[in-house]
Amino acid sequence: MIETGARRREIDQVASGLFHANGYAATSVRDIAKALDIQAASMYAHVASKEDVLWSIVDVAATAFERAADAATDDAASSDPVDRLAALVEAHVEVVTANPERSSVFVTEWRHLSADRRAAIGARRDAYEARFRRTIADGISVGAFSASDASVAATFLLTALNGIATWYRPDGRLSRDAIADQYVELALRSLSEDPR
Amino acid sequence: MIETGARRREIDQVASGLFHANGYAATSVRDIAKALDIQAASMYAHVASKEDVLWSIVDVAATAFERAADAATDDAASSDPVDRLAALVEAHVEVVTANPERSSVFVTEWRHLSADRRAAIGARRDAYEARFRRTIADGISVGAFSASDASVAATFLLTALNGIATWYRPDGRLSRDAIADQYVELALRSLSEDPR
Repeated sequence: MIETGARRREIDQVASGLFHANGYAATSVRDIAKALDIQAASMYAHVASKEDVLWSIVDVAATAFERAADAATDDAASSDPVDRLAALVEAHVEVVTANPERSSVFVTEWRHLSADRRAAIGARRDAYEARFRRTIADGISVGAFSASDASVAATFLLTALNGIATWYRPDGRLSRDAIADQYVELALRSLSEDPR
Repeated sequence: MIETGARRREIDQVASGLFHANGYAATSVRDIAKALDIQAASMYAHVASKEDVLWSIVDVAATAFERAADAATDDAASSDPVDRLAALVEAHVEVVTANPERSSVFVTEWRHLSADRRAAIGARRDAYEARFRRTIADGISVGAFSASDASVAATFLLTALNGIATWYRPDGRLSRDAIADQYVELALRSLSEDPR
């Protein structure tokens, strides 16, 4: 008998791969069970519905992004908007590259959640994006950043960061650290006063 | 009797909306026919298969991006890498915002094409990304741009640009021109020498 927590994590991991490859709507509980080599009926000992699996994946992903951002900005250096944005970008790259499939499902499939859950995740996504927006706005107000619109700049950066989930390969040319370094550089430069 | 070309464009438009909302794998030819209020059998007078519809959408989208990039860089100003990159970014924003659903399907659903077609579109996507990469590399070589890796910078910019399809609303706060202006600014700054 597999311990319930381990089985749940296994279900989420396998389902992330299927939702990522084929989309949530095209994946059935039967598909997930088959990939796990268990009976569909056994799945229902662990999850009430396919949407519960999506909810679990999205909730775990949102929590991972939130905790990483908390940890990244929870120190003395975070009083400086430039350091804070660099830390937020680095943390985001780390979470995406640690689990690209889960991150990709979080970004693209959350709209298939039921209305209540979609609203809850929407609010958490907004709050997360607001960390970037506020940090950019703080940087603008102290003259460290320059941007026409902090909200557009935050969206620009977050879509580029989320895009990493679509192309990152653990065995690819670039290490996670190299990607983090270059994305921090691009992000900070994108908000610097253009010397031209 | 609706003229064939017009009906094909209508099929592509409706299918783009469904593929965007629910994903290619979860959409049937019957769903597309229903949304058009025609019989599924009538659909087959116009298209051989669901994959043909996806192929048509993706091919038209790829052609739109290629033509816009050609037009944007096909003038005297294009000899300057900074002007050329600004023109490429502006053209990309225009194509995405002109048809966000089609652009979104192009970016996320093309992997559902058959192997031959996927290879053909993959090659066109690579060639399109190479325009950005070469322009950035040209800018680095003449000292107009600064970046650790032109390829990473091109991917950073293109994922941010493609992300517009996920949040742009024609009736939203930002006009297409305002988005283009701000994305050009962010893109050029992201490649400028950091004055800090």
